[in-house]
Amino acid sequence: MEKHIAIIDMGSNSVRLVIYYINTQGAIYKVDDLKRSIRLSGHLDEHGRITDVGVELAIQCLKQYKQLCDARDVQYIKGVTTAALRQAQNRDEVIFEIFRQTDIQFEVLSGEEEARYGYLAVRSSMDIEEAFIVDIGGGSTEITYMKERNLVHSISLPYGAVNIMETFFKQQEVLNKDDLKCFYNEIKATLKQIPWLKNKRCPVVGLGGTARTIASIHQYKTRYSFNSIHNYKMDTYDVEHIFHLLRRTPLSSRSQIQGLSSGREDIILGGVAMYTAVMNYIDVDEFYISTQGIRDGICLEILKQEVEQDLDEDIVSMHIKRFAHYYKINTKHAEHVMHLSVELFRQLMQAKILPYTEKEARLLAVAAFLHDIGRTINVYNTANHTFYLLSNVNLPGLSHRERLIVALIASYKKAKILRSRVHRFDDILNEQDEQLIKQLGVLLQFTRSLDRTASKQVEGVTVKYDGKKVTVECLVKKKRSIEIDLANEYIKHFRKHFGHLFEVKALKK
Amino acid sequence: MEKHIAIIDMGSNSVRLVIYYINTQGAIYKVDDLKRSIRLSGHLDEHGRITDVGVELAIQCLKQYKQLCDARDVQYIKGVTTAALRQAQNRDEVIFEIFRQTDIQFEVLSGEEEARYGYLAVRSSMDIEEAFIVDIGGGSTEITYMKERNLVHSISLPYGAVNIMETFFKQQEVLNKDDLKCFYNEIKATLKQIPWLKNKRCPVVGLGGTARTIASIHQYKTRYSFNSIHNYKMDTYDVEHIFHLLRRTPLSSRSQIQGLSSGREDIILGGVAMYTAVMNYIDVDEFYISTQGIRDGICLEILKQEVEQDLDEDIVSMHIKRFAHYYKINTKHAEHVMHLSVELFRQLMQAKILPYTEKEARLLAVAAFLHDIGRTINVYNTANHTFYLLSNVNLPGLSHRERLIVALIASYKKAKILRSRVHRFDDILNEQDEQLIKQLGVLLQFTRSLDRTASKQVEGVTVKYDGKKVTVECLVKKKRSIEIDLANEYIKHFRKHFGHLFEVKALKK
Repeated sequence: MEKHIAIIDMGSNSVRLVIYYINTQGAIYKVDDLKRSIRLSGHLDEHGRITDVGVELAIQCLKQYKQLCDARDVQYIKGVTTAALRQAQNRDEVIFEIFRQTDIQFEVLSGEEEARYGYLAVRSSMDIEEAFIVDIGGGSTEITYMKERNLVHSISLPYGAVNIMETFFKQQEVLNKDDLKCFYNEIKATLKQIPWLKNKRCPVVGLGGTARTIASIHQYKTRYSFNSIHNYKMDTYDVEHIFHLLRRTPLSSRSQIQGLSSGREDIILGGVAMYTAVMNYIDVDEFYISTQGIRDGICLEILKQEVEQDLDEDIVSMHIKRFAHYYKINTKHAEHVMHLSVELFRQLMQAKILPYTEKEARLLAVAAFLHDIGRTINVYNTANHTFYLLSNVNLPGLSHRERLIVALIASYKKAKILRSRVHRFDDILNEQDEQLIKQLGVLLQFTRSLDRTASKQVEGVTVKYDGKKVTVECLVKKKRSIEIDLANEYIKHFRKHFGHLFEVKALKK
Repeated sequence: MEKHIAIIDMGSNSVRLVIYYINTQGAIYKVDDLKRSIRLSGHLDEHGRITDVGVELAIQCLKQYKQLCDARDVQYIKGVTTAALRQAQNRDEVIFEIFRQTDIQFEVLSGEEEARYGYLAVRSSMDIEEAFIVDIGGGSTEITYMKERNLVHSISLPYGAVNIMETFFKQQEVLNKDDLKCFYNEIKATLKQIPWLKNKRCPVVGLGGTARTIASIHQYKTRYSFNSIHNYKMDTYDVEHIFHLLRRTPLSSRSQIQGLSSGREDIILGGVAMYTAVMNYIDVDEFYISTQGIRDGICLEILKQEVEQDLDEDIVSMHIKRFAHYYKINTKHAEHVMHLSVELFRQLMQAKILPYTEKEARLLAVAAFLHDIGRTINVYNTANHTFYLLSNVNLPGLSHRERLIVALIASYKKAKILRSRVHRFDDILNEQDEQLIKQLGVLLQFTRSLDRTASKQVEGVTVKYDGKKVTVECLVKKKRSIEIDLANEYIKHFRKHFGHLFEVKALKK
């Protein structure tokens, strides 16, 4: 049942290989990722045919990808190509020649299919109900309107980073004002013909290299503290700002801009201009970046599973389960600690000892479920490793702030350490967040101790509050256990953090 | 073949449980670690017998440890006890009572045995030929002289952190000068009777909680940048300094000292005083800390393997192989990249293009072998994860500086990132180190690309230098491969970092 599959995506700008590993439970992990900038659209002759040189370049690259796939035991290679070949006059010949020489079968995706794959990727990796998904590639732009997590409309426009540069901006050292005006006018005229773009109040989700680059440049500029691109949120204004930064920087020194990867200096302006044009037209304020894109959507489609995914399914839970499986945590223990934590939290909430809501209960649940994940790295300093993993490995569905809060609750040990970590991320977290993390952190330390032997010694907890003292009654199998002893040690910290006297009682069932 | 074993170590100060997991290949990993401060030596009556209350406390704790062992599928529990029971008049009764109630068989270790276990732990985790190993516990101190990695002499003295406090320092708020003098005099008189302590030129290796605490306080004070205690090196003077810091701080505010764990405030002074007394007497300059101690030595002995370990075996290689196995790297690929790296490095050294020695070749070999270790965490940002693992997880045998250099070579991507990391660790690394890391980093990037498909496409490399240009000839199976293509891309960076023109040639064998 477990297998490797590869997606090769031949675009106008680059040819990209991604190898996925699918485990026995159907969870998908990327295991390799390689990109070569072939710039196929630069190899069109005057008749709109891809030249022999272009084909040869592509084939050389694909032969090497084939080697890598063979070395990695890939059972199935799916080749797709988008605008690059969609627009070529000799596309069938090229595809046949590639097949003859490499054995890889390429499928020319329609703009509609491209949009759909992008939508699938976003739906399975972002907790968002309504959005315009805008995927700007080398030779085309797909815009999709998603509502209640359904694909409602989509369209493909023949403008991409590469051909915008060639057609409008002419690769000059500095972008000409008139050229830009001309570009904006044409895009505006094109967008005007799409009736469903107007009067929606929802964010744009950007996919593809241009979007990732915008986020990366912005993170460098603002010295963003968190190491993640997926689900990064920006204002439309920020995108505008980055466009002007790029415009002002002559082509020859553009590679100096931090966050701009080499091989993209000459086309980035086209892609960013397109984002500003689209976002201005549909008049949105928020811009989110998804690092999941059409290749991921294709993989989901091949595996069929996500396509039939229940649209109401909580994607956070789905990904957390996979995460837990990947890092091989003891799920029985994790679930029990989560159960005890949420039970205790809700009762403290009801007794008005904690001033929170179900939103915080959800963050606590995630932190409780994943608290032990650092153990995969090493049994020593587990809390540090848990913090590292949760703050450095993508957990789709959660915002960056939520991911940080979860990471800090799950790895909470001492107020002092928390202090310095919150300080490091003070562009994302504030003092109230710190207070929340501290309280849920000590709560989780306590509930973890209630399942120290991972054998459900404590089956449940009941909170009793007499106005002066809070009693946490633990329903136990045996009256004396290491769990109750440890719980007694941890509950001492509650007074300081919750402002009440606490005690633990063991109740034999 | 794989199994869990537990060591329970009942000392004068605390009762400690460590659970080890031993895999099918015999490698040992700690999977749990728990400590309760029972302070057994405080439960002696006037006849030197452990009181019923003391026995009951121990038994309650051991019953809980037993639960945890059962929950963790421990097949074998080994109980040892040291000075605490060695000195008790009713030791046999106590051991029998414990066995009757908990089924755990305790063995009273002699001071000699204790010393031997500490020695085994040090020998298997530090790359050191000659040292005094000083293990200060709650009720005794073991001093061992190791030469050429053999145990030459050992002795056990009945002075430990707990009884020094009781006998000499009397738990006063502030330590009395006369009490201290009296203590130093007695220790000096005792040490004078040990002929082999004098006239040796070698460092002290400290084991046990006092040593770890000294290191931890020192790291806080100096804001040490590296997250590791094992193999931490200090001057004798630093230990003296920490002793005076502790002395000056009244008992009631001692818990404020960063690095001092709670439950140790009242005895730490005794242990540190003993270290200063011993180190002053034997007149050494260097103090190393080992986090591996007698429990680890006992585990090694039970498993018999390390005891028969070849004393000449390179402990770095041994631990690196285990590390690689634990993090499940592709060893064939790792070994091949290591082989290519060292081959290329040595030839560049011989051609006087690189100014290094075999010492650096060894660091490169370790980095090359472990370069892909971050993949365990995630395929994205592998280099970052590699850096995290290598700089946060103990690699016994290497110094902190060496571990950092290895981590930075293995995860090298760009000079700019390296710059900021070296800056973060500027208490350990200097500019020359940065230059070394940069050069070996680009070299490793290149050799990694030579085995990109992990299929030994490039079997070997030969360096040709005509005084102007360096040619790296790659012995290949096929003339065209992704490896040679990538190698051509990476070798471009060589000119900048090595100051010569480079080219790659593929030679078909």
